[in-house]
Amino acid sequence: MSDPDLPHQRREWSRRFDAVRRHTLALAETLSDEDQAAQSMPDASPAKWHQAHTSWFFEALLLRPHLAGYQPLDERYHYLFNSYYEGLGPRHPRPQRGLLTRPSLTEVRDYRSHVDRHLHQLIAQCAEPLWQAVVAPTLALGLQHEQQHQELLLTDALHLLSCHPWRPALIERQPTAISASTSSWLAHDGGLVEIGHADGDETGFAFDNEGPRHRVWLEPFEMSSRLVTCGEYRRFIEDGGYRDPRWWLSDGWATVKSQGWRAPLYWIEDEKASESENEQDAPASQVAWSVFGLNGVHPLDDHAPVMQLSFYEAAAYAEWAGARLPSEFEWEAASALPGMSQLFDQAWQWTRSAYHPYPGFRPLEGAAAEYNGKFMVGQLVLRGGSLATPPGHTRSTYRNFFPPAARWQFTGLRLARDARSRAEIHA
Amino acid sequence: MSDPDLPHQRREWSRRFDAVRRHTLALAETLSDEDQAAQSMPDASPAKWHQAHTSWFFEALLLRPHLAGYQPLDERYHYLFNSYYEGLGPRHPRPQRGLLTRPSLTEVRDYRSHVDRHLHQLIAQCAEPLWQAVVAPTLALGLQHEQQHQELLLTDALHLLSCHPWRPALIERQPTAISASTSSWLAHDGGLVEIGHADGDETGFAFDNEGPRHRVWLEPFEMSSRLVTCGEYRRFIEDGGYRDPRWWLSDGWATVKSQGWRAPLYWIEDEKASESENEQDAPASQVAWSVFGLNGVHPLDDHAPVMQLSFYEAAAYAEWAGARLPSEFEWEAASALPGMSQLFDQAWQWTRSAYHPYPGFRPLEGAAAEYNGKFMVGQLVLRGGSLATPPGHTRSTYRNFFPPAARWQFTGLRLARDARSRAEIHA
Amino acid sequence: MSDPDLPHQRREWSRRFDAVRRHTLALAETLSDEDQAAQSMPDASPAKWHQAHTSWFFEALLLRPHLAGYQPLDERYHYLFNSYYEGLGPRHPRPQRGLLTRPSLTEVRDYRSHVDRHLHQLIAQCAEPLWQAVVAPTLALGLQHEQQHQELLLTDALHLLSCHPWRPALIERQPTAISASTSSWLAHDGGLVEIGHADGDETGFAFDNEGPRHRVWLEPFEMSSRLVTCGEYRRFIEDGGYRDPRWWLSDGWATVKSQGWRAPLYWIEDEKASESENEQDAPASQVAWSVFGLNGVHPLDDHAPVMQLSFYEAAAYAEWAGARLPSEFEWEAASALPGMSQLFDQAWQWTRSAYHPYPGFRPLEGAAAEYNGKFMVGQLVLRGGSLATPPGHTRSTYRNFFPPAARWQFTGLRLARDARSRAEIHA
Amino acid sequence: MSDPDLPHQRREWSRRFDAVRRHTLALAETLSDEDQAAQSMPDASPAKWHQAHTSWFFEALLLRPHLAGYQPLDERYHYLFNSYYEGLGPRHPRPQRGLLTRPSLTEVRDYRSHVDRHLHQLIAQCAEPLWQAVVAPTLALGLQHEQQHQELLLTDALHLLSCHPWRPALIERQPTAISASTSSWLAHDGGLVEIGHADGDETGFAFDNEGPRHRVWLEPFEMSSRLVTCGEYRRFIEDGGYRDPRWWLSDGWATVKSQGWRAPLYWIEDEKASESENEQDAPASQVAWSVFGLNGVHPLDDHAPVMQLSFYEAAAYAEWAGARLPSEFEWEAASALPGMSQLFDQAWQWTRSAYHPYPGFRPLEGAAAEYNGKFMVGQLVLRGGSLATPPGHTRSTYRNFFPPAARWQFTGLRLARDARSRAEIHA
Repeated sequence: MSDPDLPHQRREWSRRFDAVRRHTLALAETLSDEDQAAQSMPDASPAKWHQAHTSWFFEALLLRPHLAGYQPLDERYHYLFNSYYEGLGPRHPRPQRGLLTRPSLTEVRDYRSHVDRHLHQLIAQCAEPLWQAVVAPTLALGLQHEQQHQELLLTDALHLLSCHPWRPALIERQPTAISASTSSWLAHDGGLVEIGHADGDETGFAFDNEGPRHRVWLEPFEMSSRLVTCGEYRRFIEDGGYRDPRWWLSDGWATVKSQGWRAPLYWIEDEKASESENEQDAPASQVAWSVFGLNGVHPLDDHAPVMQLSFYEAAAYAEWAGARLPSEFEWEAASALPGMSQLFDQAWQWTRSAYHPYPGFRPLEGAAAEYNGKFMVGQLVLRGGSLATPPGHTRSTYRNFFPPAARWQFTGLRLARDARSRAEIHA
Repeated sequence: MSDPDLPHQRREWSRRFDAVRRHTLALAETLSDEDQAAQSMPDASPAKWHQAHTSWFFEALLLRPHLAGYQPLDERYHYLFNSYYEGLGPRHPRPQRGLLTRPSLTEVRDYRSHVDRHLHQLIAQCAEPLWQAVVAPTLALGLQHEQQHQELLLTDALHLLSCHPWRPALIERQPTAISASTSSWLAHDGGLVEIGHADGDETGFAFDNEGPRHRVWLEPFEMSSRLVTCGEYRRFIEDGGYRDPRWWLSDGWATVKSQGWRAPLYWIEDEKASESENEQDAPASQVAWSVFGLNGVHPLDDHAPVMQLSFYEAAAYAEWAGARLPSEFEWEAASALPGMSQLFDQAWQWTRSAYHPYPGFRPLEGAAAEYNGKFMVGQLVLRGGSLATPPGHTRSTYRNFFPPAARWQFTGLRLARDARSRAEIHA
Repeated sequence: MSDPDLPHQRREWSRRFDAVRRHTLALAETLSDEDQAAQSMPDASPAKWHQAHTSWFFEALLLRPHLAGYQPLDERYHYLFNSYYEGLGPRHPRPQRGLLTRPSLTEVRDYRSHVDRHLHQLIAQCAEPLWQAVVAPTLALGLQHEQQHQELLLTDALHLLSCHPWRPALIERQPTAISASTSSWLAHDGGLVEIGHADGDETGFAFDNEGPRHRVWLEPFEMSSRLVTCGEYRRFIEDGGYRDPRWWLSDGWATVKSQGWRAPLYWIEDEKASESENEQDAPASQVAWSVFGLNGVHPLDDHAPVMQLSFYEAAAYAEWAGARLPSEFEWEAASALPGMSQLFDQAWQWTRSAYHPYPGFRPLEGAAAEYNGKFMVGQLVLRGGSLATPPGHTRSTYRNFFPPAARWQFTGLRLARDARSRAEIHA
Repeated sequence: MSDPDLPHQRREWSRRFDAVRRHTLALAETLSDEDQAAQSMPDASPAKWHQAHTSWFFEALLLRPHLAGYQPLDERYHYLFNSYYEGLGPRHPRPQRGLLTRPSLTEVRDYRSHVDRHLHQLIAQCAEPLWQAVVAPTLALGLQHEQQHQELLLTDALHLLSCHPWRPALIERQPTAISASTSSWLAHDGGLVEIGHADGDETGFAFDNEGPRHRVWLEPFEMSSRLVTCGEYRRFIEDGGYRDPRWWLSDGWATVKSQGWRAPLYWIEDEKASESENEQDAPASQVAWSVFGLNGVHPLDDHAPVMQLSFYEAAAYAEWAGARLPSEFEWEAASALPGMSQLFDQAWQWTRSAYHPYPGFRPLEGAAAEYNGKFMVGQLVLRGGSLATPPGHTRSTYRNFFPPAARWQFTGLRLARDARSRAEIHA
């Protein structure tokens, strides 16, 4: 679709646009039509909705304000597919996205094509000042936005399938096992470090919440070269981790009890083993676990990274293990240390940092101002990336964020600890 | 499908079976595939689920126990499509029927065909004693059951579409307007009347809850020859009916306030008119109403019967109108009075009777024991039938039932009052 | 306080008034000041509130409208102590009655005295036509009302103390054990019976909901001469009654599961025994029970009537026992049978009748119209009386009522069954 | 009570102990007995419970483990008055503290005396090593703990009285009005600052959450010399602040809508003015406000500091005002600037910092480990102190904390902003 007469930069963006948009469709194709329509909880959206909303984003922020003469395919989609932009008018209630049986999936695909076609038109036609000031940056934002929804499309679909008694497989993708022998503590000297994305840095995209780049003082610390594994986490469970308030933050312990948590979200107790589950004193080591994931249900792999757990569980595990979660600043500073593995490709890593604005933070202008800033309370920062993150989407300054009880994402943990000398003082 | 070599009675049942099963499909065809999958509230089920469950009923009560060598199409459907039969094992949680993206609609249709084929086989092959004692009566029950779900399929689909901001039309069917001049009070002398379906009466089907036939003493009363209309109900609203606790039962008033009820479920205030809705003293008569129904949104027709209202609203209206709701016994006794209209074809009629067992009531044997009896508390009886009731399904002894706050069914009301002499004594 | 110069009838009412009012205080005296102030759930009221509200009733319905020059002790009490009379203005939210730390208990007692004093004044001074038409009947109603609150004061205080880990004793009163050998089925022939209180019957007080007296047709039936005992109910539990959906109405079974019911409200499992409670298959017969009551915690007495159970439990027990609950009409008709015991002095008896209006029912005039009628949906009728009912308060036409899940009242059950011949036909 | 033969340090602690304990009683005396018993919401506790729990703290952490031969007044109090110490056993559910009618207030006072007497005994008798290592530090912690509950006793009592329609006055204490002319922005250069309480600093008490002292890098910033006033906040309301999502964090806006917030918790709209409140477009400036506080209801004072607002409201106001909330580090660093006023004596000041552990944080040993650390997620830090904080209790490193929606504390705000040069760059 990319026009050979376009200037190189626009041609390049045109190409990227097509690639990202196609990838969304490819992911959706792994689902049945009915899988794409259902909504399993208010926090999760149907795949059909993701496909429509990512198109709405381009329409609302680019086509409607900037493409002269643009005719929406259906005026009513503006209401249906707004997610949370108060500045762009009222919207369909989030918990009822699964009731949007109209438009059909076919019509949503038509909507995507309609938006794609006009977006290419805008890229080709817009004046250079508008291109530089608005279209190019908003296009970049829109593609990053769509990539975020690509991951959400997978996590939400996985949650939907987890609610089905059959727990069917979605795609052939699974976490990578890692040998425990590769594990080591990597030391960082601390001191005054630079954190975040620099405003003037044009080498790559960054969200507004990754800046401004600023200085942070760190005490010396150590970070694990790898993620915590299922085997390690299993021992936490076997040691009574979910029955002992000592390890838990108060809110976490209340959640464990009220929700009846006994393991990460997609861990399944073997039925035979669980027959004796009523006896609290039973030797828990005899429980056999399976894990549900993108590729269906499989026996727990001790060497795979543990995932689909909440911040509460991550923090409790770290406490039990005699370590702690890193701050997001430690994580970013340590991410460049030699020997660090599993940074971006397995599971997002809960940090001990609240998702708050960096000093001097200013949100984007216009409608996009609501993109990140208004969520900066009550959530925790996750760093890294996961096996569901689209290639090339994440980076070391990336700040993902979820509430502390959220468990349906590909979320795991990496341990940190104070530098040894300091730790010895406390010991 | 009906085998010409079958005995007449079996051939006749075979034919009826096909007709009822086909009608379900015809109703479902009025919906898009996505409409058939979604669930708008825990009380409502997806059309796909209705199609599967009605097949499950025949499979669970006839094919599995009585067709030698029967192989289910999929063993797992037994769990998925059980509604509430504790005696037949655990079942998928009702509020999550909309998450059953597997099996697909196509597979559910295959399931229907599979059950149909084997049901015909059972009809053809079973020994006569089994036919008489079990197969014929259970087949009759299953077809009545499927007809009940045909009405539910429509009411549930209508509720789903009512949650969509577009409120699309479903089918071309609408209530019948009635001239107010046809209205009259029909008198009944009361006395000892026979109520319910007689056990030995083989002339037609009846549910267990319609018997035993028994005597009830009635005081003289009068019953309206027709249903309450939208125009009459509109005047109740305009008179401040939803703001005056005098007319309401205590639970009803609490519901009005907690739910913010201002009109029947599918009445829509015209936007212009509602601008002034904040002023409680505004002349409410200026409000323009539309009504959503099977055929979409249309301006309120004063002569159409009011429907989609709760028992609480029906009782409040009757109180306001200086009348009352009939008891279910009065309704049944009066149904034979000459001049009575709109009995079975417009809207179910709330009665002032709790849904309790008749004296000497015994539920059916076996799994079907759970069909009716266990719901006999906390609900009110409705009599008659509606424009969504399949032709031939209802009768004067039929006892429909819903909780007092339920509003998504085709439920209206017919007024009654004590016989005049008595009323005068009290006046 | 009764004035010797008063006409006999007024003197007599004056005396009765004092006696009832004193009895309320005597009951309250069994509680500490702090016990009288606390509210353990929205359905229950503090004893202090009961004392104030019963005074409010006389003030609102008699003193304010009918005693010339009456000055309320505090105008603001009219809002605080209205229970549910919409016609008498807004009121303090029911769930927050326990937050009414002002007025103090002493001030509430002053309020009682103030009302008492002026009530006597009204009795002495009012003109005879007003006395006959309004004061005497409303006074009678107010005293019956206060007696109802005397029972509620006890049941609510008992519930409060049941929430305290110490479960302290309240007063020395306990159910009367009955020998099983005294048990028998008493037969009633059925037929057309007269039910309810006759309008013109001046021989005794009756609430509006007990009339009009009317005819009801009954089939022949039998009724147990006594209440179901704790020992009988214990066997229902030991037989797995709370784990078997067969015995339960659907709403009841849902409540059992959601509330975790395992026994009547105030039954306490012995701790030693319950250690093994996790094993569902453990011989339940080894569980030792204690029961909390007005006189504190005591070992379960097999011969005492079971109480503090819901309609759901009563109906499930009856089903398990191969019997049924009586209708309220059967109960009333059978109450006169020779040999009937435990009618009014042990526990209210759940009937299988919904609390609906009798044919021709008209509520009282004026504010008292809200006394009974507006609660006539969603509740079940209880007949009889309990060990907490004030002497002389109840009678055979009395209709008590509570929702089917209510358990904190002195509520038990008496079995009924169809007459033998009929039962044999069905067997 | 202080023994003249004691070593000076112990005598001094003995004196302090008596003073703090007496102050609690003096505060409770401002309440009626009934006020002391009631609980207005799960987050608030009855004053009686505060009096008992602060005694329990000394008993559980000092008398039971360290006073030989100590006999508790009542063993059962250990369960009743534990607040949240999982390590010290099970406890009475927090939402039911208002149901603890036993022990009586008199008995709780006896409990206090019992604990006081034995605490003095422990101070006098314990061996010097135990005194130094355990008793002295735990005594200090216990007194600080009791002072925290002194503030809670007031805030909880105020909330209770706010639920009473009369809104009675509690004590004669009110915020101090401040002239707007005294307002100025105080500049801080930022850089590497030392934050928190130093471990080895024995000059004064600090909670574990105030350490370790550590370095933090700050960008240059400015802080207001005074708190935001009611008059300023009123203009935010008049400007439609509660109706405009632009100013609000997403969770805050959701809370505004779901809770119907229109002003700080204890602001009361004048009835006359609010008649027109239904008209959204009405000139809001005509609304007259009163404010409920410790001294009852008074007309809003424009010069008094605004308080009883949530973090959400504080952050929205700051956004509207073109400023921001300070971080807790900025607050601490700026607290020493000349010209700073209203730091500790009016209202706690919401900061933009999540309540998380400082680098190297280690909780106290033993039972006290649960004192602070386990609450370190989901809450925001407040700095300063309030008019309800006991004299001498707070300091510049003090970290108070509450969830972002909490409004019943004496919580206000102080504005901050980036240093001008930086702000200009962004402008």
